[in-house]
Amino acid sequence: MDQLYRYLDDVYEEMVQIRRHLHQYPELSFEEVETPKLIAEFHEKLGHDVRTGVGGRGVVATLKGAKPGPTVALRADFDALPIQEENDFSYKSMVDGVMHACGHDGHTAALLGLAKALNRMKDEMDGNIVFIHQHAEEIPPGGAIAMIEDGCLDGVDVIFGTHLWATCPLGEIGFRAGAFMAAPDRFDIKIQGYGGHGSQPELTKDSIAIAGQLIVNMQQIVSRRVSALDSAVVSICSIEAKNPYNIIADSVNLTGTVRTFKEEIRDQIEKEIERVVKGTCMAADADYIYQYTRGYPATVNHKEETEFIAEIAKLAPTVTSIKEYEPQMGGEDFAYYLQHVKGAFFFTGAGIPGRESYPHHHPKFDIDERALLTAAQVLGIAALSYTKN
Amino acid sequence: MDQLYRYLDDVYEEMVQIRRHLHQYPELSFEEVETPKLIAEFHEKLGHDVRTGVGGRGVVATLKGAKPGPTVALRADFDALPIQEENDFSYKSMVDGVMHACGHDGHTAALLGLAKALNRMKDEMDGNIVFIHQHAEEIPPGGAIAMIEDGCLDGVDVIFGTHLWATCPLGEIGFRAGAFMAAPDRFDIKIQGYGGHGSQPELTKDSIAIAGQLIVNMQQIVSRRVSALDSAVVSICSIEAKNPYNIIADSVNLTGTVRTFKEEIRDQIEKEIERVVKGTCMAADADYIYQYTRGYPATVNHKEETEFIAEIAKLAPTVTSIKEYEPQMGGEDFAYYLQHVKGAFFFTGAGIPGRESYPHHHPKFDIDERALLTAAQVLGIAALSYTKN
Amino acid sequence: MDQLYRYLDDVYEEMVQIRRHLHQYPELSFEEVETPKLIAEFHEKLGHDVRTGVGGRGVVATLKGAKPGPTVALRADFDALPIQEENDFSYKSMVDGVMHACGHDGHTAALLGLAKALNRMKDEMDGNIVFIHQHAEEIPPGGAIAMIEDGCLDGVDVIFGTHLWATCPLGEIGFRAGAFMAAPDRFDIKIQGYGGHGSQPELTKDSIAIAGQLIVNMQQIVSRRVSALDSAVVSICSIEAKNPYNIIADSVNLTGTVRTFKEEIRDQIEKEIERVVKGTCMAADADYIYQYTRGYPATVNHKEETEFIAEIAKLAPTVTSIKEYEPQMGGEDFAYYLQHVKGAFFFTGAGIPGRESYPHHHPKFDIDERALLTAAQVLGIAALSYTKN
Amino acid sequence: MDQLYRYLDDVYEEMVQIRRHLHQYPELSFEEVETPKLIAEFHEKLGHDVRTGVGGRGVVATLKGAKPGPTVALRADFDALPIQEENDFSYKSMVDGVMHACGHDGHTAALLGLAKALNRMKDEMDGNIVFIHQHAEEIPPGGAIAMIEDGCLDGVDVIFGTHLWATCPLGEIGFRAGAFMAAPDRFDIKIQGYGGHGSQPELTKDSIAIAGQLIVNMQQIVSRRVSALDSAVVSICSIEAKNPYNIIADSVNLTGTVRTFKEEIRDQIEKEIERVVKGTCMAADADYIYQYTRGYPATVNHKEETEFIAEIAKLAPTVTSIKEYEPQMGGEDFAYYLQHVKGAFFFTGAGIPGRESYPHHHPKFDIDERALLTAAQVLGIAALSYTKN
Repeated sequence: MDQLYRYLDDVYEEMVQIRRHLHQYPELSFEEVETPKLIAEFHEKLGHDVRTGVGGRGVVATLKGAKPGPTVALRADFDALPIQEENDFSYKSMVDGVMHACGHDGHTAALLGLAKALNRMKDEMDGNIVFIHQHAEEIPPGGAIAMIEDGCLDGVDVIFGTHLWATCPLGEIGFRAGAFMAAPDRFDIKIQGYGGHGSQPELTKDSIAIAGQLIVNMQQIVSRRVSALDSAVVSICSIEAKNPYNIIADSVNLTGTVRTFKEEIRDQIEKEIERVVKGTCMAADADYIYQYTRGYPATVNHKEETEFIAEIAKLAPTVTSIKEYEPQMGGEDFAYYLQHVKGAFFFTGAGIPGRESYPHHHPKFDIDERALLTAAQVLGIAALSYTKN
Repeated sequence: MDQLYRYLDDVYEEMVQIRRHLHQYPELSFEEVETPKLIAEFHEKLGHDVRTGVGGRGVVATLKGAKPGPTVALRADFDALPIQEENDFSYKSMVDGVMHACGHDGHTAALLGLAKALNRMKDEMDGNIVFIHQHAEEIPPGGAIAMIEDGCLDGVDVIFGTHLWATCPLGEIGFRAGAFMAAPDRFDIKIQGYGGHGSQPELTKDSIAIAGQLIVNMQQIVSRRVSALDSAVVSICSIEAKNPYNIIADSVNLTGTVRTFKEEIRDQIEKEIERVVKGTCMAADADYIYQYTRGYPATVNHKEETEFIAEIAKLAPTVTSIKEYEPQMGGEDFAYYLQHVKGAFFFTGAGIPGRESYPHHHPKFDIDERALLTAAQVLGIAALSYTKN
Repeated sequence: MDQLYRYLDDVYEEMVQIRRHLHQYPELSFEEVETPKLIAEFHEKLGHDVRTGVGGRGVVATLKGAKPGPTVALRADFDALPIQEENDFSYKSMVDGVMHACGHDGHTAALLGLAKALNRMKDEMDGNIVFIHQHAEEIPPGGAIAMIEDGCLDGVDVIFGTHLWATCPLGEIGFRAGAFMAAPDRFDIKIQGYGGHGSQPELTKDSIAIAGQLIVNMQQIVSRRVSALDSAVVSICSIEAKNPYNIIADSVNLTGTVRTFKEEIRDQIEKEIERVVKGTCMAADADYIYQYTRGYPATVNHKEETEFIAEIAKLAPTVTSIKEYEPQMGGEDFAYYLQHVKGAFFFTGAGIPGRESYPHHHPKFDIDERALLTAAQVLGIAALSYTKN
Repeated sequence: MDQLYRYLDDVYEEMVQIRRHLHQYPELSFEEVETPKLIAEFHEKLGHDVRTGVGGRGVVATLKGAKPGPTVALRADFDALPIQEENDFSYKSMVDGVMHACGHDGHTAALLGLAKALNRMKDEMDGNIVFIHQHAEEIPPGGAIAMIEDGCLDGVDVIFGTHLWATCPLGEIGFRAGAFMAAPDRFDIKIQGYGGHGSQPELTKDSIAIAGQLIVNMQQIVSRRVSALDSAVVSICSIEAKNPYNIIADSVNLTGTVRTFKEEIRDQIEKEIERVVKGTCMAADADYIYQYTRGYPATVNHKEETEFIAEIAKLAPTVTSIKEYEPQMGGEDFAYYLQHVKGAFFFTGAGIPGRESYPHHHPKFDIDERALLTAAQVLGIAALSYTKN
């Protein structure tokens, strides 16, 4: 493996250049044009088989080893966010209102650098490595589904991916078998009562009074209907019925989020909310509109592949800590790949030592670029080790 | 009228004797035997037309005037309560666990005394006076319905009745046109959830949690669905789900009362409770049993007849105060008579001067017996004045 | 009184002209300039004592009778509303966004016409008549308080006033002794929780969840803490915490109204709301801001004066019906006058026969102008009868 | 180890006899007399150091190996339950209303049998084995605390214990590192309102209405205040305010249970309940009594020792399955030992093949006695392996 580390050291400067270039020219989900072009040209220059426009805007490149063996996919996403960057560094975003505020620029740069390093080792390599460069991770339905339907996993035996994580220390690898990232869903409820004057509630169906009951009744979904050993969150985050002080509200809109790790709990909660809404509105003789919008499913790591990553990560020279992480309540469309092939998704610490990190999606979000090397090392060893078997 | 007052003074001692006799031998609702017998014999001795067993155990006696004229009914009830008397006076109840703790003994004695006095005036009297001695006022469905069905109001033009009221001052007449006494109903709700271990609520339907929602949701019936200008009370008075500390309750029983003055509000609340119960249970996927048991309807005094009482009461020598009373939340089956003929029901103050009165239905309930005279005077003038027209 | 009716007939056309003029040039509360000027000049021309700028913009004119006697005040308000008129008639409002949509133009015109009629009768008149032309009835604190402080009731023995009521039939007088119009108050509550991500409620104080409890808990003020025989409304009419679907709300604002007829119930509810807010927020470890803003007090008519109006109204030639009205849940600053002197406030039906009336404050609000005559007749007889005593 | 298995086979019949004897003569927690006597005599006969009356009624016996080495404690509890046995077998309980319905008879018999087997191996054994026979596991505070205070863990390096589990298959070992069994606490709440007649709630503080709010408000502890990644249950299992249908309840009693795995969550919930009770009662101007009674703490297995058990259990001839179990919501005072020394508590499947098992604490509870051998094998290898190091 020492060869891999050396080749990665050689390409590190270029990785950083690529990441900074991407950072300056971020592209929104489903609107990526230049980024996939840059990626495709990079792989073409290396002589890889390249397919563009996969599932829309994705790029899939394949490096074939000298001998037959397993096929390992490595995935990096490349879309940016509708956020106005507030950083001051020289390579800050040139695009108004768009920013790589989640580190996908780093994911892409690390995977391209790794591709270049592995390319130099192809003669001693078994099996194949498929580089999946995915568009549109930030907005459901995401790019993964379409890329899978378009064949990006054909022939793939296992898949690995990582997320640079700014609030974890540089050098740390965070892993977890089983449910690692939650399914982040959204619900919208409109309670349709019947408005009127505040002095005569009996002539109305007071939608705010009903909303009060609904908010209260919905608490029992988590407190009474889900096992304490399962995880579920139901949060009503927005409520609106802006009215004069003496006019009873005709309707109220409520919006919120549900987070779960298991599909059966997710299905159950989608139904339970509707039942609570329906019953509460019936009790008050009111109507409702209920909409439940699914985000990504939970990202469920395969046990063996996760332990494999936790084990081989020990070999990576820049890894200083390997930790089992608690499940994360945020979502990630890597989830879909893991529904089709075995694999694992892990975190690569990217905190800048000596200062507090801004969270992901923050206008001042930043990473320590050395994390690109760590990510490339772990993904690289994983690919080489796995294909060797 | 002076003649009436003199004749009533003459009979006052006998009234007191009768009242004390009845007080010693109280009989429960629907079980009255000796009391109606005593009443019937009293009237027979006076030569009145007497019907016994009216509507079960009621007695109706008629005094005919010399000349034709309107027919006035005067009503007194005669049943007692299942209460152990705690008074010390010589004529306390001889029957264990039964007591005239609501003053019906006084009602009966006053009406009998009045009958005797009026009988002496029959030659100058116009019209007829019907003495309705009613059994079973204390327990719905009460005696009034059956007596009416059995013809006690046939030919009657107007009806008057009074209640001796221990917590109002002696000498006071309390009147109110329109709704005077509430309809006191009862409801029973069983929430049927599904029990289980306290550590695994997700395997149960937690009936106590549902009961909490129901209690809370039911408040909106009064606060949101009934006009502030109407009167309604919905009180949940009993709740029971006694269980070990760690076993979730399979079911909860709730019982309570509803008080209203208008039939449409009463009908509405009976339905609203069911809707709230149904919706709340549906929201929690639970079942329920709902039973609504009507007590008497509201006692709604006729305007003209009430004003008539308020006016002629001024003539009664022992009346010292005539007041418009607030509606009373308790119930009274005099209500039924007023659904058939015009009339008025009023209160006759019976507080013993110089001491605090025990409320009706209290084991130490007592009245000032002089109130019997006041009641007889007002009912007597009412009857004579009305028949004169 | 026949003389009065003839003089009023004489002035009726002028009343209508004045009303239409005022209708064309409405002035907002506390911004009245031309209206009081017109009023003052009208009275000055009649030779009445006139004070302008009373309590700000009010006008008080006094007509002295030939002989000494009681002093009767008659009140009419003259401000308009910030509503864009949608009527089509020739004399519609010339002022953009301002409209006499509550009939105060009619009140003023009727009182001026009455003043002219009474002025012709002054030689046979006893006592004095004070014409109180009040500004700013529509917006608390209203004009009445300041006019009273500025002496408009000095020497006044009794006061009468009326409101033209478009939804009651022409020719009808509506009266009620005791509480006739409610005290309309306002409350504002801010629940200050602590925001955060929807997936981690444990790091927040979920202000929407707390608001749900508060809405539900506040229902018990009316359902449990106020007698069914008293009237009270507590309506939460507005709620606002507009947020992204996945961010728990930092704070929620609720606004609503309270309606009561008795000061002690009003005081109680102001305190009860705060106690419920305080307890509910304490239960959730959150903070709050609570503000209770009193509108006018309840308008409580004096019994004798109300019965007097109900009696003398029978004499008015255009009155065809006199009815006891239910209490009205809206507010009126006539309330303040009745706290200082005896008097009565009544409704004068002003519905246009044969068509459905638009409610007060509606852009198409309109009255049948013949109601001006009815109002003037009743106020006029009241004043003459009262001063005669 | 083969020697151990042979010796255990030799003693198996005796184990069964002991178990059946204990089953016939069960003794309640803190009332054990004959059981500890039997245990002590058994060990004395083997020549072990025996201490009786440890921490009250516990017995501690020590077997010293030939050479120095670590000291391993093995624990079995020996109390029974106040349950009337409904089994039919020949050795059913002879004591009315008392039954070994949780398998402690098996625990004791297995440990005694193991002691006899190990005794035969003492010459080749390193270190020491301490047999902790604990009284009173079923009723907090349990026997463990007192036995620890009385020195039962002095010099002990590690402790192991098992529970025979009737609802898991014979031959299965269930383990879990970290929190394995919950802390089962109890709370009692009395809401002290102020009773009165159902028709006049305004004169009362309606404790049932307050209880409704409390039940509803308490749901937010789990739904809003505890992370979805932590486990917590708050169940209100009993509520009682039995009253006539028309009398508002003076007070309500609520009782329930809390289950947690982490001390900080447990501490938090104890405080949160009180805050919710306090705030809810304050909102309604009522009083309360709140009592929180802690059961055992969570049983938190040490990681290394748990993995050690999972590993060495593979060697036991009768073990056919080794599984990582979900945390269990029930409690166990083995928890206290693990707060003092390293160790692990695991489940030994004891289901009778081919039929559905009755749950623990059921009057027909039963085990497959072959599980005694399995338990003894795993504890035995654990002890021998550990002392060997």
